[in-house]
Amino acid sequence: MNLLANTPAADDLTRWDRENHLHPWAEVKSWRKADYMRVDTAEGIYLWDGAGRRFIDGPGGMWCVQIGYGRAEMARAIAEQTMKMAYTSPWTATSGPTAQLAHMIAARTPGDLNTVHFTTGGSTAVDTALRFMQFFNNRLGRPDKKVILAREKGYHGSTYLASTVTGKERFEAKFDKASDLVHFLPDVNPYRRPPGMSMAAWCDAKVADLQDAIATLGADRIGAFIAEPILCSGGVIVPPEGYHRRTFEICRAHDILYISDEVVTGFGRLGHWFASDDAFGVTPDIITMAKGMTSGYLPLGACVISDTLMARVSAPDGQDVFYNGYTYSGHPVSCAAAIANIEIMEREDILGHVRRVTPQFHSRMRRIADRFDIVGDVRGMGLLGCIECRPDLHDPTYAKDLQFGARLDAACERRGLLLRPFGAMAVFSPPLIISEAQIEEMFDIMEAGLEELSAEYNA
Amino acid sequence: MNLLANTPAADDLTRWDRENHLHPWAEVKSWRKADYMRVDTAEGIYLWDGAGRRFIDGPGGMWCVQIGYGRAEMARAIAEQTMKMAYTSPWTATSGPTAQLAHMIAARTPGDLNTVHFTTGGSTAVDTALRFMQFFNNRLGRPDKKVILAREKGYHGSTYLASTVTGKERFEAKFDKASDLVHFLPDVNPYRRPPGMSMAAWCDAKVADLQDAIATLGADRIGAFIAEPILCSGGVIVPPEGYHRRTFEICRAHDILYISDEVVTGFGRLGHWFASDDAFGVTPDIITMAKGMTSGYLPLGACVISDTLMARVSAPDGQDVFYNGYTYSGHPVSCAAAIANIEIMEREDILGHVRRVTPQFHSRMRRIADRFDIVGDVRGMGLLGCIECRPDLHDPTYAKDLQFGARLDAACERRGLLLRPFGAMAVFSPPLIISEAQIEEMFDIMEAGLEELSAEYNA
Repeated sequence: MNLLANTPAADDLTRWDRENHLHPWAEVKSWRKADYMRVDTAEGIYLWDGAGRRFIDGPGGMWCVQIGYGRAEMARAIAEQTMKMAYTSPWTATSGPTAQLAHMIAARTPGDLNTVHFTTGGSTAVDTALRFMQFFNNRLGRPDKKVILAREKGYHGSTYLASTVTGKERFEAKFDKASDLVHFLPDVNPYRRPPGMSMAAWCDAKVADLQDAIATLGADRIGAFIAEPILCSGGVIVPPEGYHRRTFEICRAHDILYISDEVVTGFGRLGHWFASDDAFGVTPDIITMAKGMTSGYLPLGACVISDTLMARVSAPDGQDVFYNGYTYSGHPVSCAAAIANIEIMEREDILGHVRRVTPQFHSRMRRIADRFDIVGDVRGMGLLGCIECRPDLHDPTYAKDLQFGARLDAACERRGLLLRPFGAMAVFSPPLIISEAQIEEMFDIMEAGLEELSAEYNA
Repeated sequence: MNLLANTPAADDLTRWDRENHLHPWAEVKSWRKADYMRVDTAEGIYLWDGAGRRFIDGPGGMWCVQIGYGRAEMARAIAEQTMKMAYTSPWTATSGPTAQLAHMIAARTPGDLNTVHFTTGGSTAVDTALRFMQFFNNRLGRPDKKVILAREKGYHGSTYLASTVTGKERFEAKFDKASDLVHFLPDVNPYRRPPGMSMAAWCDAKVADLQDAIATLGADRIGAFIAEPILCSGGVIVPPEGYHRRTFEICRAHDILYISDEVVTGFGRLGHWFASDDAFGVTPDIITMAKGMTSGYLPLGACVISDTLMARVSAPDGQDVFYNGYTYSGHPVSCAAAIANIEIMEREDILGHVRRVTPQFHSRMRRIADRFDIVGDVRGMGLLGCIECRPDLHDPTYAKDLQFGARLDAACERRGLLLRPFGAMAVFSPPLIISEAQIEEMFDIMEAGLEELSAEYNA
């Protein structure tokens, strides 16, 4: 039996990926025709494809590789825990790294968010948070208080329930959703506000969207509000200043659980362990996290719940079991990776580094806005950035409409930089260890790519 | 800032686990009072707790540690991939181990199940399989063909959708489920058949349950039938002989997708890579897998779809995107672990070993049934076993009712063996590498535990 191949040939890998690997978001009629880039090796902020070409990893994996690639300390911590004790069931036992990481997270989350329920990633963290809300309100004898308020352009993952609260692509998709469980609030993107409207007025309007939904549905029917501090997959949308604090206070006043989905913003992306409080002055009831937790080195997620909620859900008479959890919840090796990741971030003061280089990063973004008339908007926060093309270029009546992101990505890829294209936008979130010189290098390539595109668009 | 602690004291770990770690299935009023065993180290079939006590790992982690603990080859493969390239986004790229593993799985699944969609574990594999069915029938223009047939006592995971099709504890729990999406077929457990009924008649009755459901609901409303080959968490329930083949044929005749949930039975538990075809003569439309895939060393799961289904879902006009997938789908390091796991299983002929020691394992189980009148049923298949107490001992009117599993586990734990208690049952699924001598050791302890319990119950 020759089923094994220790050193497969590059052609075999390409063929196997095409024939046997159905990627996320593959196009159903063409998935076996498309070849994906095979990333072979990676170090720091760079990766190399199968042909040996080097790229700056603009997306930072997928908003996750905070400490950069190829860290010997991570490999050591992971290998040591693998040898010592690779698995134990969280149903019946715990492990040292699991307990330690739970404590380390509780020490870094704001307020009294001290109860950590581990999951396998962001989708299952969100699924858990929403199921907790249902459990909570059933325990509290208010089974009708369960509608979830979510937002257009929000992305919360890919389980049936997590995709239900995702406001991206929800109209076009041939997937079912539990639409009766959710109510969507309109897009909060300041770039979409009516011409001439001030940011303060836009914020008022967006807060009014929430108030209107509560008035229409009734607070006694609404269980939770789920929101990313920044709508990342939706195009790095930064809500107007004051929005988070005001929506949070409204939720609190109506006993609507405020779930902050920090899968992207957690673990340093904005220069803080978590953005909710440090960047936006909000102490959520629940925070969901994943990605940066291990810098993407191993799968892990968590749903962190406040002591206040735990006390409330425990208070009613009658025992109930929290029937939620996964074989791989709190996996010892994933937790060991997360501990090493936090230790590296702390020792190298990566949070401080992010805060220090953020002005440079945004100054280079503003320069793009100033230099290129094909660019309609640049936006971001911390080491999150997005370039969106001028509205008339993505007017659907234009032939060139939604190819801007893909074309800019292609122009940059030829020059050694990967971006993440989303229709009329290209987004980037490099590893947090990116140096000042590397930030210059990244934006220099972006500007060269934009020069090429400008020539084409203006031809 | 002294948030870090590289070598935490045992007391701290116990406290942190109690204060900060909400385990799966914790009791909501007592979770902060319970201390879980802290598993510290592990090797082969043994594990050691924080106090240095050694146990045979009867549950094999949680039906998953096929190759045993402490494998240097696993640590090496994992560390090497961690250093080489720890993460890339499956949305836009692939990795060598991901492509290779997809191919290796396709080579081991039955029939034309060649399309691998990676997930983060069993729950997300099931969630994906069911969402695929919805997508499939939407694409095929039959949006009403989506009811899922599932079974009482079946366990399929913990996302909102996976828990919806789980027939365990569904009545008592304060969690919501999407009940309109599912229809449950009654318990197939032969031990629950009416006194005097033959197994053949029981099989006829269980097949009739499926036929009745189809007649009542209408085949044009039923999208899928999801079934574990053996209902493991439900108490290692082995359906009567012929049941799988007959239910499969009925599903095929009505174009109802047959989803085999092989999260436990896959990767060698019954002496085959997958049980569907090799043990039961069935080639499912979809197989879900996790656990044994990496021997639990790292989180990973997959939903594997037949080429036939992929051709059918691709056939209708119009492009659609398969909007499903996870940041950690096909994680390069998890896939490298899965490849090493398969290589070890192959080189050491672990499948052959399982087939060779299975008769001994079951002979020792039968001896328990013969020796102990407090035991009502022993059952299992491959290296899966369950001991259930005599019915009158778990009659709910008895004071001793449902403590049998926990009491047997406790009696064995004192003697160096862990079991998994489920009410009136104790189940076990040791690492597949368990030697003949270790099987004797395990059952010797179980018999000593049963002697102790017999004395108590018969006192």
